[in-house]
Amino acid sequence: MASDRIGHAGFAAKRRSAQDAAALIADGMAVGMSGFTGSGYPKAVPLALADRITAAHSAGDPFRVKVWTGASTGPELDGALAKADGVEFRLPYNSDPIARERINRGEMQYFDMHLSQVAPMAWQGFLGELDVAVVEVTGITPDGLLIPSASVGNNKTWLDRAKGIILEVNSWQNAALEGMHDIYYGTALPPSRVPIPLTRADDRIGEPYFRVDPDKVLAVVETDSPDRNAPFTPPDDSARAIAGHLLEFLGHEVKMGRIPASLLPLQSGVGNIANAVLTGLIDAPFDNMVSYTEVIQDGMLDLLESGKLRMASATAFSLSPEAATRLNADMARFRNKMILRPQEISNHPELVRRLGCIAMNGLIEADIYGNVNSTHVMGSRIQNGIGGSGDFARNAYLSIFMTPSTAKQGKISAIVPHASHVDHINQDVQVIVTEQGLADLRGLAPRQRADLIINNCAHPDYRPMLKDYFARAMKGSYGLQSPMLPAEAFAWHQRFIDTGSMMPG
Amino acid sequence: MASDRIGHAGFAAKRRSAQDAAALIADGMAVGMSGFTGSGYPKAVPLALADRITAAHSAGDPFRVKVWTGASTGPELDGALAKADGVEFRLPYNSDPIARERINRGEMQYFDMHLSQVAPMAWQGFLGELDVAVVEVTGITPDGLLIPSASVGNNKTWLDRAKGIILEVNSWQNAALEGMHDIYYGTALPPSRVPIPLTRADDRIGEPYFRVDPDKVLAVVETDSPDRNAPFTPPDDSARAIAGHLLEFLGHEVKMGRIPASLLPLQSGVGNIANAVLTGLIDAPFDNMVSYTEVIQDGMLDLLESGKLRMASATAFSLSPEAATRLNADMARFRNKMILRPQEISNHPELVRRLGCIAMNGLIEADIYGNVNSTHVMGSRIQNGIGGSGDFARNAYLSIFMTPSTAKQGKISAIVPHASHVDHINQDVQVIVTEQGLADLRGLAPRQRADLIINNCAHPDYRPMLKDYFARAMKGSYGLQSPMLPAEAFAWHQRFIDTGSMMPG
Repeated sequence: MASDRIGHAGFAAKRRSAQDAAALIADGMAVGMSGFTGSGYPKAVPLALADRITAAHSAGDPFRVKVWTGASTGPELDGALAKADGVEFRLPYNSDPIARERINRGEMQYFDMHLSQVAPMAWQGFLGELDVAVVEVTGITPDGLLIPSASVGNNKTWLDRAKGIILEVNSWQNAALEGMHDIYYGTALPPSRVPIPLTRADDRIGEPYFRVDPDKVLAVVETDSPDRNAPFTPPDDSARAIAGHLLEFLGHEVKMGRIPASLLPLQSGVGNIANAVLTGLIDAPFDNMVSYTEVIQDGMLDLLESGKLRMASATAFSLSPEAATRLNADMARFRNKMILRPQEISNHPELVRRLGCIAMNGLIEADIYGNVNSTHVMGSRIQNGIGGSGDFARNAYLSIFMTPSTAKQGKISAIVPHASHVDHINQDVQVIVTEQGLADLRGLAPRQRADLIINNCAHPDYRPMLKDYFARAMKGSYGLQSPMLPAEAFAWHQRFIDTGSMMPG
Repeated sequence: MASDRIGHAGFAAKRRSAQDAAALIADGMAVGMSGFTGSGYPKAVPLALADRITAAHSAGDPFRVKVWTGASTGPELDGALAKADGVEFRLPYNSDPIARERINRGEMQYFDMHLSQVAPMAWQGFLGELDVAVVEVTGITPDGLLIPSASVGNNKTWLDRAKGIILEVNSWQNAALEGMHDIYYGTALPPSRVPIPLTRADDRIGEPYFRVDPDKVLAVVETDSPDRNAPFTPPDDSARAIAGHLLEFLGHEVKMGRIPASLLPLQSGVGNIANAVLTGLIDAPFDNMVSYTEVIQDGMLDLLESGKLRMASATAFSLSPEAATRLNADMARFRNKMILRPQEISNHPELVRRLGCIAMNGLIEADIYGNVNSTHVMGSRIQNGIGGSGDFARNAYLSIFMTPSTAKQGKISAIVPHASHVDHINQDVQVIVTEQGLADLRGLAPRQRADLIINNCAHPDYRPMLKDYFARAMKGSYGLQSPMLPAEAFAWHQRFIDTGSMMPG
């Protein structure tokens, strides 16, 4: 098995089966798991825990835990535990479909958090006690230090805060990951906080290992499994059109002298639009770029290989199975171009503002004033979560949101009269891009923004309805700073719920 | 007159009347004015400019300017210019009633901004060019340095960025203001930004003067007028009840070891609730407190005098006429306990997070999930603006919002089914306090938050209606993460617009 990855006899002596390790977790416990966007999550203990939970439920016993992670994990963790109805409370992000269903049926409490704030809030004592940490690592050094895995997330905090620790040592992860990570141990509680000494995206300010108190380690479980990554979604025409508008805009900003020719550190979400933008950057006239972002996705790997992107800083990988295999095979080479950090550092407001990131994120809907809903379909049904988008959008040099102008074959407009839920207030939304065009909202007041968003971003099928709403709101609104008709602000959403389309029949 | 305040012959030679200075401002110009919460704004040139504008309009000529400030100013600036219909565009904050009316009638464009972001966005070139700065100072040194006035705001940025500068030297302000200010000159554009070297609220990291290029100074106007401050609003029973709940909560947090016994740097809005809290702190068991906030208001002055507050850092005074006179008379003594900084530093996310501020702000309405509307009455009519509340709420150690549970003699509930506009997303709202009680929302998911907010914060008259809405939303919502009924989410607002009350007749 994987015992050559365990270089320390004390830890080797704690090798246990996943079942024995899972037996250390009891009903009602708060469990801090590793995992961020489907990488670096524990793969054996959560499955064994799900089995325990199922058995307990079959015997008529209650068994549910609170699950804290970095962000989304994999089906062996969120999927299995949700299927077993084993999660009473979840933070800070989820994208698992089974867990999503339970949340939206009201069967699971889900606390959707800014990803930079999870670790400080845990330290501040605002989240309650953490009973157990279950953390995947790539190996354990002879000195008893932990070599992180394919994501860093909140692992440092879980290891420091948990009363007991279960380690999964995954030998599938390439041993060449050693040395890539940068774990910063300089955080503190106020009044002892100091400036975070990072001024360039490629600065290393920490150490490549997690420290751990060996006395807290209850079990070490060996695994040999890849992350169950999501398949690559290739850019379609719409994604390519969005990328085209955005790259043209960035070129214009460089020409106007508002951003340097090497751009500024790029932050990018995941998905086919993000990949289209990153792919487009391969042929764009910007060199020597860097990224300071949450995740390294397929497009970023390509951009690194092209040489146009000099380096990428993130907290996790979010790769297709093909890209993960490709990276894993070539890790020793890629390692020098990448840094994975704790998510409180990758997403830290202090650093995002200092570096001047160009933030590029997706959305579910934006209203005519540029308030953005990133999380709740029809205002109530959670899709994934706010993730790091708030950390980046508010503090970025340039805050860009991208979306196709419609969803569900045109039955949903991404531009609506009034956002049914707000994650990003209009002050934090500077540019909106759809396949229809780009609205540069910088320096504009709400009524000016409405004209631009409707004309440049909305789909032509919905544009007349938006213009009609706005014109009537200009006549009938209580005030005209952000004209609004409360009785019909959500009429489009109600129509979709009633008829399956926002478009009148 | 005030010429002993002008210690430099080159500047003395540029003395002009307010009328001559105002003649330097032309139709369409962007004018950066000093002024923050009614202090330190220019008092003569804007009035003369308003006269010019009125004369131009009488002659049938167009004349409107873009006005940029620190925050709110006084009637001689916003009031006079708005009355003359002389403002086409305004940023970043307004509380003048005449300007408010014009904005809400759609006659003025108003770009309501995070106050920490105004200076960086101006430097980034996102706000367009700044033609003229009109800045009140307390004096000019023999070396040609400017002694700031009763607010700092964005003055450093206006002086640096404007093509031409008009100075008002106000001899009413006490000369002892010299030395109180701390103007940080270390900001930069990325990629040259570095950590801001402030780790304690009372650190001085800059210099006590503004630098200015004398060649850009077009005119120096002498004045001798107090700031037209708002009268003190004494705490009523409701404000005292809110303060009581909040102080009890802070005591509990100290007892639980989550905040130090001297608390953490206090940020506080203005108004009678803030004054009640600050007054309550005089008798509370916390010593050696500091504040790191936007403005120093009456209650903070009392708290300084009591010795319980060791020092106050802000960007401006916001005092009643009595307190302003009292402070002015005793400035030499108070000066050592106060620091006024540029608003990009007083409100900087990096510093608010590092210091771990306890943020206490007001609101217009909160919904049952804790999304907060601070700006738009009935979703469309702007009251003042977001100001610095977003800078503080998102980055604070503890983010607290306070409000009476009803307004307009009970006809408006401050707790509503769905916020009609969102300035602070539920992730940024940890505690809500009304005279009814306090909801500690930390670590809670939306449905858990709803129970607490309805039961602890809503007025008993509205509580059954909120429970009824929530119960029906739990049955009929599209998803149950944040249950919502789109067709009636704003029914209360529409009812108020139609009938003058949110309560059914």
